[in-house]
Amino acid sequence: MTSKKAPKRHIKLTSHPGSHGPPPLPIRWGAPSAAERGPIIGSLTDPERRNVIGTHSGSYAVYRAVAVASGALDPDHRPDLTDTSPTDIIGPYPAWYDAERIVSIDPFGAVVHEAFADLYRDGYDIRPTIAITKAHIHMPEIAAAVAAGRLVPDGKILRDRSDCVVTKAAIEPVWYLPGVATRFGCSESDLRRILFEQTGGMFPELVTRGDLEVFLPPIGGKTVYIFGELDHVSDSSVPLAVRVHDECNGSDVFGSDICTCRPYLAHGIEECIRTAQQGGAGVIVYFRKEGRALGEVTKFLVYNARKRQEGGDRAEQYFARTECVAGVQDVRFQELMPDVLHWLGITKIDRLVSMSNVKHTAIVNSGIEVVERVRIPDELVPPDAQVEIDAKVASGYYTDGTVPEPGELAVAKGREYDI
Amino acid sequence: MTSKKAPKRHIKLTSHPGSHGPPPLPIRWGAPSAAERGPIIGSLTDPERRNVIGTHSGSYAVYRAVAVASGALDPDHRPDLTDTSPTDIIGPYPAWYDAERIVSIDPFGAVVHEAFADLYRDGYDIRPTIAITKAHIHMPEIAAAVAAGRLVPDGKILRDRSDCVVTKAAIEPVWYLPGVATRFGCSESDLRRILFEQTGGMFPELVTRGDLEVFLPPIGGKTVYIFGELDHVSDSSVPLAVRVHDECNGSDVFGSDICTCRPYLAHGIEECIRTAQQGGAGVIVYFRKEGRALGEVTKFLVYNARKRQEGGDRAEQYFARTECVAGVQDVRFQELMPDVLHWLGITKIDRLVSMSNVKHTAIVNSGIEVVERVRIPDELVPPDAQVEIDAKVASGYYTDGTVPEPGELAVAKGREYDI
Repeated sequence: MTSKKAPKRHIKLTSHPGSHGPPPLPIRWGAPSAAERGPIIGSLTDPERRNVIGTHSGSYAVYRAVAVASGALDPDHRPDLTDTSPTDIIGPYPAWYDAERIVSIDPFGAVVHEAFADLYRDGYDIRPTIAITKAHIHMPEIAAAVAAGRLVPDGKILRDRSDCVVTKAAIEPVWYLPGVATRFGCSESDLRRILFEQTGGMFPELVTRGDLEVFLPPIGGKTVYIFGELDHVSDSSVPLAVRVHDECNGSDVFGSDICTCRPYLAHGIEECIRTAQQGGAGVIVYFRKEGRALGEVTKFLVYNARKRQEGGDRAEQYFARTECVAGVQDVRFQELMPDVLHWLGITKIDRLVSMSNVKHTAIVNSGIEVVERVRIPDELVPPDAQVEIDAKVASGYYTDGTVPEPGELAVAKGREYDI
Repeated sequence: MTSKKAPKRHIKLTSHPGSHGPPPLPIRWGAPSAAERGPIIGSLTDPERRNVIGTHSGSYAVYRAVAVASGALDPDHRPDLTDTSPTDIIGPYPAWYDAERIVSIDPFGAVVHEAFADLYRDGYDIRPTIAITKAHIHMPEIAAAVAAGRLVPDGKILRDRSDCVVTKAAIEPVWYLPGVATRFGCSESDLRRILFEQTGGMFPELVTRGDLEVFLPPIGGKTVYIFGELDHVSDSSVPLAVRVHDECNGSDVFGSDICTCRPYLAHGIEECIRTAQQGGAGVIVYFRKEGRALGEVTKFLVYNARKRQEGGDRAEQYFARTECVAGVQDVRFQELMPDVLHWLGITKIDRLVSMSNVKHTAIVNSGIEVVERVRIPDELVPPDAQVEIDAKVASGYYTDGTVPEPGELAVAKGREYDI
C-alpha cells in the first residue's frame, strides 16, 4: 500500500496454530453425537473462536464483505434466527456419525441452534450451513404432463393447478479436508498446498493451520427438492426416484437447445412426482457446477470451437474440444456428490434419473444400491443436443437404446453457426 | 502442518511489491487503447507475469485447483483457443476507454487474442474473461405467448417452433479496485482490508500488493442474451428493451410461487422479442446473485421467519425479516450492474423491464437514459408472491398501478406453512 492508503491498524496476514489465545473448540468429524463432533464456527464476529478456514455463504462471502466496506452491514451483526428453524425434520441417520460417508456437508448444519444450545447461551456465534423450508413450485413441463395425461393431480403432492408441494433444503459446502483428500486420492498436505497455490493464493491458513481440518470453500452449494412424504426418502421398503442435476443456466433457465439439461431435469421431476404418488418419494439435487464446474466462459469458448472445427460439430470430438480449452474434460468431482444422499438417509434408489456412468459409479461405490436407471426419452432431446447424447453414450453413459458406432460419431449432427 | 504432512517445498504465503523479479506488465485502466491499457494476466502458469490478485473463472477456480490436486489437470496446461473467438463483434465503445464508466468488467476480455497478439507471441498466458457465442433458446412461456397471439414468429428472431435465435456472452468479474471503491463510497484501502478480513483472510495480496489494482474475485459472473441485430443494441435511434435480472434459482428453474422472478424474466424476454421484431433489439442480463447475493441458505431461513412470524407473512415485515437474519436487506450492489450495459454501448433504454428503483437509479446515474419502465403484468404474479410485490412497491419500486396503503401492508397475504 502507498502511504496515502496506509491501513488504519495492524492486519494479520495469516494465523498459525497457538499464535493467539486458547485453541478453538475442536471438531471431531464423525463423532457419535453432535456435541462430541463440535460446532462449525466460521463467523467473523469473534475471530478467536473460529475453528475453520474460510467463512459462510460460499462465494457470497465476498458480497457480504463489500456490504461491510460500504457501510451497509455492521460486521458485528449476529443473526436473529427466530422462526428460521427447519420446517421438516431430516435425520439424524447413521451416516451423520461416519467420518468417511459424509465429508463435504455439515450433517448438523440445519439444527445448530438445537444441537449446540449450550454454546449459544455462552455467546458463541454458530451459524446454520443448511436451511430447510417448504415451497409450491409450478413448471410448464409438469402442466404439460398433466395435460397429456402422463400425470394426474392428487390434490396433495400434485395440486389441481399442476403445482407441486415440496420440502427443500439449501446446503453450503463444508469440507472436512482429510476426508476430501481421500476422496480425490491425494494427500491432505498436497490438497491444502494446491488449493492455496492454484487459486492464486487464497487462504494461507490452508497451509499454516494444519490444526484446522475444516474448510468452508467460496463455491456454490446445492439445493435438495423432496417430493412426497419425507419419511419415505430413507425408507428402502418404498420406491425412490432421484435425479442429481448439475447446473446449466443456458438450458435450465433459458432453454438452449444444445444440451438436454432442462428437459432431463423436468423429466426427473415428473418421475419424482409419479414415484411419490405411488407411495414412495422423489429427490432432485441441484448442484451449482456450471459448465462441468469449469464456468460459463469456458463453456461458451468450447461451443464456438465445436461449431467451427473442421468436420463440424460431432460426437467424436465432443470431449476433446473441452480438453483443448480447459486441459481437462470435466471437474465436477462426483466423488463428493453422494454426501447429500447419505445426509438424506438414502440407502437404495429405485429409479436413478441420470445416464451418467460417473454419477452412477460414485453413488454405488458410496454404498447406495441403484435398482434401475432412467434415460432421457428420445422425444425430449432438443434439436442441437444429439451430439452431446451420442458422445456421452459412446463414452459409457447408460442407455437401453443403441450405442452409436464409431462411424456414426464422425457424422456432424450439430448446427453450424452462421459465421 | 504436522511433520507427516510436511509440504514438499517452500510455499510463499503472500507476495510483496518488488519481492521477486521485474515488475509485471502494468494495467492502465481506462487507457485510450487496449495496448496501452495492458492485458489482465490472472493465469498461474507463469506466476512472475501475473498482474492481478486472484485468478480466473470466479469461484470455479476452486474446482480447477482440486483438478490439479487430484491429478486430473496439468497445472501448466495452456488453453488451445483455436476457433473460440467471438461469433459476433461487440464494441469497442467509448465507455471501454473510460476508467469510471466500467470498473467491474474487462471490456477487452473477449478479444484478448487479437488485442494482445504480440504478447501471445512472446509466450504470455492471457485468458479470455468474456466469451461470446450464439444459441437457439426455447422457453415454454414464449411458446405460450405465440399460442395466445401475443407474439408472432417471423422466421428469424422468433422461429416457427417458438425458438429464439440469440447472441449470448458470459462475463467473469474483473474488478478495478480504485473504481469499485469509488462506487461503494469507501477508500480503496478500506475496501482492500475489509475484503480480506471479512472473507476470513482470503487473498493477503489485497493488503500486501497495493501496486496490483485489479482483482478477479471468486464470485459468479453474468450472462448477456441479445435478441435482434447486434448493431441495434447501441443504436439509440431504434427501440431497445432491457431486463437486468438477478438469479433466483427457486423460481427461475423450479417455478417457486413465492416470488415473481421467472414470470418477470419470461415477460422480459417477450418484450425483447417484440422490440427486436419492431426493428430494435432486446437485452437480458442474468446476474449470479442468488438471494440478493446473500445466498440460498439465508434466503430459506428468511422464508421460514416470514411464514412463522406473528401476524403472518405480510408486506410490512418483508424487508425486516431479511435484515434480522442477515443484518442487511440486500447486498446486490446495483452500483456495479450498469457496467455491462456500457460494455454493450447502450446509451438509451426505451423499455426497462424492471420495477426496481435501485436498478433504475443505478442505470440513470451511470448516464443511460430510461424512457419507460415496464412492470410485471398482474396476471403473472404467482399466488404466494403478492407480499413481495406489495412490499417492493411500497418501498419505492415502480408501478403504474396502485401503491398499497399502510393498512394494506399489515394484512397477511402469504401462505402459511402447515407446521
